[in-house]
Amino acid sequence: MIFHVVTLFPEMLESPLRESILGRALKQGLIEVESHNLRDWAEGKHLACDDAPYGGGDGMVLKPEPLSRAVTALKHRTPNAKVLLMSPQGVPFGQQHAQRLATEEGIIFLCGRYAGFDERVRATLVDEEFSIGDFVLTGGELPALVMIDAIARHIPGVLGSADSVTSDSFTDGLLEYPQYTRPPVFNGVAVPDVLLSGDHGRINTWRREQQLLRTMLRRPDLLEKADLSADDRRMLEALVSVADRS
Amino acid sequence: MIFHVVTLFPEMLESPLRESILGRALKQGLIEVESHNLRDWAEGKHLACDDAPYGGGDGMVLKPEPLSRAVTALKHRTPNAKVLLMSPQGVPFGQQHAQRLATEEGIIFLCGRYAGFDERVRATLVDEEFSIGDFVLTGGELPALVMIDAIARHIPGVLGSADSVTSDSFTDGLLEYPQYTRPPVFNGVAVPDVLLSGDHGRINTWRREQQLLRTMLRRPDLLEKADLSADDRRMLEALVSVADRS
Repeated sequence: MIFHVVTLFPEMLESPLRESILGRALKQGLIEVESHNLRDWAEGKHLACDDAPYGGGDGMVLKPEPLSRAVTALKHRTPNAKVLLMSPQGVPFGQQHAQRLATEEGIIFLCGRYAGFDERVRATLVDEEFSIGDFVLTGGELPALVMIDAIARHIPGVLGSADSVTSDSFTDGLLEYPQYTRPPVFNGVAVPDVLLSGDHGRINTWRREQQLLRTMLRRPDLLEKADLSADDRRMLEALVSVADRS
Repeated sequence: MIFHVVTLFPEMLESPLRESILGRALKQGLIEVESHNLRDWAEGKHLACDDAPYGGGDGMVLKPEPLSRAVTALKHRTPNAKVLLMSPQGVPFGQQHAQRLATEEGIIFLCGRYAGFDERVRATLVDEEFSIGDFVLTGGELPALVMIDAIARHIPGVLGSADSVTSDSFTDGLLEYPQYTRPPVFNGVAVPDVLLSGDHGRINTWRREQQLLRTMLRRPDLLEKADLSADDRRMLEALVSVADRS
C-alpha cells in the first residue's frame, strides 16, 4: 500500500516515519510513504499555492488548481488511490475507518494550511474528508501521520506479535481493561488479587467487567454503540445495580 | 511554556517541530519542547521499561518506576508542570482543553507504547488523561505532537496574523463556513454570487448560515452543545423549514 502526502511542508513527516513500527514497515516494504511538495504543482512567478478569500476575511485559502494537478499526477501513478482531505470539518476518524482504508491500494492525503481549502477542492477532487478531533491544528500533516499509523497497523505483517494486543481495543467498541506489571505494590497500590490467582476464567471475567465499567464511567457514548453479548449485558446490569446501591 | 515529552522514541519528534508555526515559536523562544528518553530513568542491566502483564495476555506493559522517576526529575525542573497521559482511554481532547492548557507553566507528556501503562501510573502519577480519538496508534508521540500544536496556537505571539483566522473555528462550537478563492469558476463550479457582491452584511449572514447548515448536516452532536445566539436559532429554524419543504 502506498500513502501519498501532499503538503507545503514535506520534511515534517521525516522523523515520525523513521522509528518504531512505521519505520520497520517501511524498511520491509510493507508500506510506502511519499511526501510531495504542493508547490511542485504551482504555477506563475511566485509558485503561489494560496490566495485571498472571496468575500474578505483574514487568512489565505489554498487554491484549487495546484491540488487538482497533484491529484491528477498521483492518480496517474496509483490509479485506484482514494483522495482524502484532512480538515476539522470532516467525519471524525475512527478505528472502523482505519480498518476499511487498510484494504486500499493507495491513499492520497491533501493537507491543509492557513484558512483551509477552496470549497471546490472538497466538492470536486476528494473522495472522503476526515477530522481527527474537535480542535484546530496548524496543518493536516500531523493528522495524516496519525491516520497512516492507525491504518498501517491493519496491514498484514506490519504488527509484530508484541504489538498485536493493542490492535484489539475499539474493535468491540470498548475501552481496554487495566493492566498491571511488577512490582506487586507501587506507590501504596497493590495489584488486584484476581490477577495473581492463576485462575484464567476469573481473570477473563474480571477484565471484561473492568472494560464495561470503565467504558460506562468514562465514555457512555461508546457503550451505546458497542457490540455487546448477552453475557456483557448481564455483567453491565450487575455493575449498575452495585453502583445504585452504593 | 515548556513541553516535556517522555518517550521511548525521542527522535520521533524532531521534524514536525522544525517547520512552520511550531518551528518559528521554538526559534522565538515562545515555547520550549524537550524530548526525554524514558530509558534514561530505567534501571537494571537491560534498562527495561516494560514487563509482562500480571494475569497473562499478549504484549508488554510499561513499568511504573521509570515513569515515576521521570516525573520526579522533570517536576524538579518545572515544579508546576501538569502531568498528562496520552491513551485511548482518556478524555477526548478538544479545543477547550487546548485553550485551558495554554495557560500552564509546563506540561509533561507521558507517551505509551505496547499494551499500555501499568494502571498505577494512571492512578498515582498523572493529573489528566487525554485521547485524541477513538483509534489505536503505535504510541503516544503523535498525540503529544498534536496536542502541543493545538495548545501552542493559544499562546500569545505564536500565531502570525495570516494564521489567526483558523483559531476561530470551534471557539463557538461550529464548523467553519466554505471558503473560495480565484478562479471564479473551477471544475464547472462557480463561486457563490453573494461573495462577489461586496455587501459585507449579506456576506456575514450567508457565512453564518453556512456554518449552521454545515454543522447541522455533518455534526449535529456539535450543534447541540454550541453556544447559539437568538439570531442563530432563528436562522437555524428557517434552514430546517426549508429542508422540510424540499
